[in-house]
Amino acid sequence: MECQQLREQVYEANMELKRQGLVLHTWGNASGIDRERGLIAIKPSGVAYADLTPASMVLVDLDNQVVDGTLKPSSDTRTHTLLYREFASIGGVVHTHSTYATAWSQARRELPCYGTTHADYAHGAVPCTAVLTPEACARDYEEETGVQIRDAFAGLDPVAMPMVLVGGHAPFTWGKDVHAAVYHAGVLEEVARMATITEQVNAQAVPLPAHIVDKHYMRKHGPAASYGQG
Amino acid sequence: MECQQLREQVYEANMELKRQGLVLHTWGNASGIDRERGLIAIKPSGVAYADLTPASMVLVDLDNQVVDGTLKPSSDTRTHTLLYREFASIGGVVHTHSTYATAWSQARRELPCYGTTHADYAHGAVPCTAVLTPEACARDYEEETGVQIRDAFAGLDPVAMPMVLVGGHAPFTWGKDVHAAVYHAGVLEEVARMATITEQVNAQAVPLPAHIVDKHYMRKHGPAASYGQG
Amino acid sequence: MECQQLREQVYEANMELKRQGLVLHTWGNASGIDRERGLIAIKPSGVAYADLTPASMVLVDLDNQVVDGTLKPSSDTRTHTLLYREFASIGGVVHTHSTYATAWSQARRELPCYGTTHADYAHGAVPCTAVLTPEACARDYEEETGVQIRDAFAGLDPVAMPMVLVGGHAPFTWGKDVHAAVYHAGVLEEVARMATITEQVNAQAVPLPAHIVDKHYMRKHGPAASYGQG
Amino acid sequence: MECQQLREQVYEANMELKRQGLVLHTWGNASGIDRERGLIAIKPSGVAYADLTPASMVLVDLDNQVVDGTLKPSSDTRTHTLLYREFASIGGVVHTHSTYATAWSQARRELPCYGTTHADYAHGAVPCTAVLTPEACARDYEEETGVQIRDAFAGLDPVAMPMVLVGGHAPFTWGKDVHAAVYHAGVLEEVARMATITEQVNAQAVPLPAHIVDKHYMRKHGPAASYGQG
Repeated sequence: MECQQLREQVYEANMELKRQGLVLHTWGNASGIDRERGLIAIKPSGVAYADLTPASMVLVDLDNQVVDGTLKPSSDTRTHTLLYREFASIGGVVHTHSTYATAWSQARRELPCYGTTHADYAHGAVPCTAVLTPEACARDYEEETGVQIRDAFAGLDPVAMPMVLVGGHAPFTWGKDVHAAVYHAGVLEEVARMATITEQVNAQAVPLPAHIVDKHYMRKHGPAASYGQG
Repeated sequence: MECQQLREQVYEANMELKRQGLVLHTWGNASGIDRERGLIAIKPSGVAYADLTPASMVLVDLDNQVVDGTLKPSSDTRTHTLLYREFASIGGVVHTHSTYATAWSQARRELPCYGTTHADYAHGAVPCTAVLTPEACARDYEEETGVQIRDAFAGLDPVAMPMVLVGGHAPFTWGKDVHAAVYHAGVLEEVARMATITEQVNAQAVPLPAHIVDKHYMRKHGPAASYGQG
Repeated sequence: MECQQLREQVYEANMELKRQGLVLHTWGNASGIDRERGLIAIKPSGVAYADLTPASMVLVDLDNQVVDGTLKPSSDTRTHTLLYREFASIGGVVHTHSTYATAWSQARRELPCYGTTHADYAHGAVPCTAVLTPEACARDYEEETGVQIRDAFAGLDPVAMPMVLVGGHAPFTWGKDVHAAVYHAGVLEEVARMATITEQVNAQAVPLPAHIVDKHYMRKHGPAASYGQG
Repeated sequence: MECQQLREQVYEANMELKRQGLVLHTWGNASGIDRERGLIAIKPSGVAYADLTPASMVLVDLDNQVVDGTLKPSSDTRTHTLLYREFASIGGVVHTHSTYATAWSQARRELPCYGTTHADYAHGAVPCTAVLTPEACARDYEEETGVQIRDAFAGLDPVAMPMVLVGGHAPFTWGKDVHAAVYHAGVLEEVARMATITEQVNAQAVPLPAHIVDKHYMRKHGPAASYGQG
């Protein structure tokens, strides 16, 4: 079977989304890319998590053509592939409707960086895209969702900001591989929940000052990173 | 045993309500109908979920007469049967007191459609019925609850809007079969929770524009539905 | 062993509090009374739930004297015994620090009856006692807590209102036996949570009209009760 | 292996943090000290909880030098050691990013004592430190976090107040040993959640009067403590 290892990683990532409680029913999908071959493994559309196997992952290329697999790929596939085309450094993409991150998407607000939990993974406020216009909606809906994300990232580094809220819809996250993308989906849900409570107990809450945002981000990601065993 | 398959489906649906955390104690019930025979299988009244079996499901007809079963049917039976009589296309009905959907019922507000999670299953705001008048309350309470729902659906298609909030009480949901009704009960609870948080983080939140509501609903339910493997 | 059956019921009730998530650490206790003998079985003080057994339940009389048991009874024992002395019809008492009910106690507000979930078990708003004065606090603290509850129930029937919020502290519930008292502790936590969300989504929410409160209470508790198999 | 018993206690404490749901991913750490030998056992940095063993706990001295262990100690080690140096009576320290306590840290508010649940463990409002200045941040970040805590405790007894919120960051708790520090981390999360809901249902909520705060604290901790079997 082609791309067996990638399929297995993507299968495991999809199951991990479910285990972390980030996906209700079938409302989420994870994909990973083999950059050398230009092939993406992605969850099939509308299949229950209990029925997934590595073999049921669908292989598509960067132009959304199914290369291997008997099932239809996720209905969000064209958003995933656009992100892979636009963000050359990413190796995995995740889409969920996790509760708090989706609520902020529906509120159409960027998510402020209120603390170090957020700053450890995302360098500043998480952007929120505009809602699709009727014209964009009438074109290729899923591809246009990717276009909205790309436009919201003008001037932003997708490595330093591995997550986005799609206005009126729900979040997408990514990372160096599909495992990192899942990890970021969990981080986003938790920091969205913390931010909600932060504003609840202090309506005048202010974001973390830039010098601490920078310090925490660099502690985990800078050239002299001091976190972990690496 | 009569309607064995229907009993089993309804039994499974009631147990699934419990598994999804939509029912505390015995506060919920699911029913399914065999349209050809005009028979409804429904949970017995006040029996703990752990004690239910397919055989303990009670069979009633559309006039609320017990056809088979030694236990009393759910105290909400007359609401279920009125919905089956009024909404000819539905095959299953569910009633829960799930936390967020019940809170919105108690707040006596319709549930706005703030995002695509909602739009994928319900075409616009979920209606909330008026509270029963003293006169209606003095008549047949459970049947009058069904009347309130019917009245709230004047001009609404119960297929495109498979859920309702009963003012001061709690939600009812339905679908093409009892499994779909349970699924919609889970959707309603989650979108009610998301809407609560949406308003919490943006007091001026606005509903999703109609062109996106339509797009998402049609993506799953229109003649050219693109979601799933069907 | 004396009162073996009562000990077992009270042990099971304490464990059920833990299972329902109503008690964190050791913050709760349940007791039951044998009215004929005037003996109360109650959880020992500060013992972890995993270490409880029926034999570790402590037997006390209505004057708080330990009749059987090597452990100290719950530090809240004198509140329990006062309730048994004042409310002749009750057979079990429960105290928890469950999250939402405790928050309402801390907010020092009575809990409005916003819906039928509440009305099915408690006939109207759940009272909240005053906070103990310095003078009462300097006397017998636990007994004075019971006095506050008794005073808050002037004109109220403890059968129709089997629960109370102690201002600045936490809830007590009761019932015909210890099992009913535990059940009511779960009901109170859930309706307190629902009421919190109800007010969150509608700052002008109004209580359920009296005719529906009466109808629901009578449906479960009146002489012509129609709920359950009884 | 050196300090085998301490390692095991600290290992168990770290695992208990995970079991109580106080730690998502690797966002937390617990340590314990052997005062006679001046040695501290602490969780290694960035290692998944599932991979921890007693042997993987790292031994450091009060000057942050690794004494035994092949892994790097927690990136927060210098905050732990400063607390051990400043608070001579404590035997264990815990750091988490638990949801509600972190939200209050981000809101940069002290946590008011609204009820007896809080008063049983912490004598008054839980302090919140200032956010680090750019100058402090440029020095030793983790040590300066400890300095902020020390400064916030001027005039406070760390035995009567075994917890703190670090502004813009997250909580630290401590106790007579690492087990007590973990217990206090659970208490803080729960009372932070209760306080959030208390303010939600009563925007004018007032703290518990001092005479009840004192009574409850003394009931558990004073010379005539009446709680538990001790």
